[in-house]
Amino acid sequence: MKIITEQHTVKTKGNCDIVNITDTVMASLHKNKLKQGNVTVFVVGSTASISTIEYEPGLKKDLPEVLEKFIPSSGKNYHHNATWGDHNGHSHLRSTLFGCSQTVPFTNGELMLGTWQQIILIDFDERPRTRKVIIQLIGE
Amino acid sequence: MKIITEQHTVKTKGNCDIVNITDTVMASLHKNKLKQGNVTVFVVGSTASISTIEYEPGLKKDLPEVLEKFIPSSGKNYHHNATWGDHNGHSHLRSTLFGCSQTVPFTNGELMLGTWQQIILIDFDERPRTRKVIIQLIGE
Amino acid sequence: MKIITEQHTVKTKGNCDIVNITDTVMASLHKNKLKQGNVTVFVVGSTASISTIEYEPGLKKDLPEVLEKFIPSSGKNYHHNATWGDHNGHSHLRSTLFGCSQTVPFTNGELMLGTWQQIILIDFDERPRTRKVIIQLIGE
Repeated sequence: MKIITEQHTVKTKGNCDIVNITDTVMASLHKNKLKQGNVTVFVVGSTASISTIEYEPGLKKDLPEVLEKFIPSSGKNYHHNATWGDHNGHSHLRSTLFGCSQTVPFTNGELMLGTWQQIILIDFDERPRTRKVIIQLIGE
Repeated sequence: MKIITEQHTVKTKGNCDIVNITDTVMASLHKNKLKQGNVTVFVVGSTASISTIEYEPGLKKDLPEVLEKFIPSSGKNYHHNATWGDHNGHSHLRSTLFGCSQTVPFTNGELMLGTWQQIILIDFDERPRTRKVIIQLIGE
Repeated sequence: MKIITEQHTVKTKGNCDIVNITDTVMASLHKNKLKQGNVTVFVVGSTASISTIEYEPGLKKDLPEVLEKFIPSSGKNYHHNATWGDHNGHSHLRSTLFGCSQTVPFTNGELMLGTWQQIILIDFDERPRTRKVIIQLIGE
């Protein structure tokens, strides 16, 4: 059994930008030649999240729209913003809600994702960011 | 340390159906006789999720009701539906929000769940589905 | 490769109390002297969750406020409450939404968290609780 930990850099546009990182995770798995185990994908920081989605243009517009309804980016006086002079209270709350990591199993050297299920980084911050994404493989 | 990966099939009614899969996970643990480690439960696909809940009839009605409020199944024109002629934009968004996996530790050969804490598959799709659920044990 | 499973006790005030448990997780990692791997943090029970946040007073007020909007603690007749005479239907639903576990990688004997990213226990129950939190290290 081996553990391999890689740090990757992902550029985002912020503002609920959804970036498909499946190919990066897959390339890491193929390069390291593990056959069975799982990969934990983790984003460093408190205004982004890791999840899965059918990566297509429609849902990339839908997700920000529904989030505006219950954790709006403007029009609400967040205590976080008032305390620190920040403008990203909503980004923090969304990140806490969606979580910082997902764990995906693999067998036969391939991720066990569905055909329309991609691993994504969602950047909730209010500006473009360069993110550190940790890809950690455990397996044999 | 061993890794065991099993693929199980779970039938659902769709439409936010909540299926208690605790017994399946527990049976897999007992059969494989691992004592200490964790199990990652992962659903293949982009319109379902894995979580935990007190599995009882009241909450099975409450969860769909609160979701209707912020990611409604109808009355909103999702871009996903407009783009693809689908009717399950809400199913995808809910799946991304709840996530595709949970990891539960075990010791002494038993899951460390609370008495009223069950592992569930939630199927957000708009129709009955047969789901692939991955149960992956890592431990000794 | 080793697995170490610890059970910790965390006192909360309930009512969406957010408790920073980063130091506890970090102390467990340092004590056990693992260098590379990950820690799964898991809360036992169905009315609490594990996530990450920038732990500061503003967000501690913001999170309960936004949750009141979409999974309110009062003013809605939850089926769970009607069925069991309970008052914490909202607590269960929030716990299912946020999830019971997070997995955080470590290298060089340190958690790979961001500077403003803390591991938290959120207690959604309607009263103070003493919680069991499982800290499970896998690594070498």
